[in-house]
Amino acid sequence: MPRVSEAHLAARRQQILEAAWRCFARQGFHATSMQDVFAESGMSAGAVYRYFPSKADLVRATAEGIAGIADDVFLEMLADDPVPPPAEALRRTLEHLTEVTAADEIDRTRIALHVWSEAVRDTEIRGIVTGIADRLVGRWEQLAERWLDAGLLPAGADPHHVGRTMYGVMIGFVTQRHLFGLTTDDYLDGFGALSR
Amino acid sequence: MPRVSEAHLAARRQQILEAAWRCFARQGFHATSMQDVFAESGMSAGAVYRYFPSKADLVRATAEGIAGIADDVFLEMLADDPVPPPAEALRRTLEHLTEVTAADEIDRTRIALHVWSEAVRDTEIRGIVTGIADRLVGRWEQLAERWLDAGLLPAGADPHHVGRTMYGVMIGFVTQRHLFGLTTDDYLDGFGALSR
Repeated sequence: MPRVSEAHLAARRQQILEAAWRCFARQGFHATSMQDVFAESGMSAGAVYRYFPSKADLVRATAEGIAGIADDVFLEMLADDPVPPPAEALRRTLEHLTEVTAADEIDRTRIALHVWSEAVRDTEIRGIVTGIADRLVGRWEQLAERWLDAGLLPAGADPHHVGRTMYGVMIGFVTQRHLFGLTTDDYLDGFGALSR
Repeated sequence: MPRVSEAHLAARRQQILEAAWRCFARQGFHATSMQDVFAESGMSAGAVYRYFPSKADLVRATAEGIAGIADDVFLEMLADDPVPPPAEALRRTLEHLTEVTAADEIDRTRIALHVWSEAVRDTEIRGIVTGIADRLVGRWEQLAERWLDAGLLPAGADPHHVGRTMYGVMIGFVTQRHLFGLTTDDYLDGFGALSR
């Protein structure tokens, strides 16, 4: 048997994920079965299960992918001196996220709306969503600590609450982008006017 | 035949809506059928259809109900002189919305997450959601015009973009409230630190 390369494994994993995104985008999350993912990916049950034992694992991988994209910008901004202020940090995050996800055949951030809906009712999915949200809120919180140090927030402001609000502002963008075609420019223009 | 009073009609309408909210909360929006609503309400198909010919009509009534609750606060704030600034306006809106919806057996704003998910794929539902969003964005836009006049926003700020962002901030709250139990106080504290 030929040795299976790392690149080959990663490509098959990606092939399954993209098949799942097409299913979720077409049918929603709840109505998609693992059987649908086998058919859409053109791979056997055994081959798919090897990478993703359940729908929850597909969600986890998708959500971690999105968080990973955001992390690239967060780490860059956290290393910046001076720290980019809130409106500039939001611009860099949303622009990078939009650019990377729009390059795919199916926009992963659109799947987020289906996953949030499922997470309201399904505790396993909610656990995954909570983990990813905590990670993103945590990044905003780190930035908020820098904003505090730089005098960009009022003294005594709670970095964690600021992180929650910034994450909420991201959710409000992703939702309106997929429901109404809202552009990053319009949203950022509004946020820029409101923020310090 | 006895004359059916207005109050009786309104009570039956509410009874059907509440049955639908229980179904949506339990099964999600997509998986709920009109048959489920008949069974849950304990009413006949004919009786339900008289009030709501389709699931879309249940969504429209639910969404209009939420917009109506928000409108009560918006009209009050638009009549206020001086106009409440952004953080105070958000506080009054979220607190009123949370108070009214939490008093019901099923929190209607939780249904919003299921409806947004459905709206990504279903054009009829998206049309309803767009109509309600435009109404709420329009209210924030009216407030933003007042904020501009009062010097609470930078000169040249676009009230419509500000309205979109404020609506996004509301979406981010509703989502995090139902997924993570986020409190109005924590979210408002974060927004207050970020906003002018």
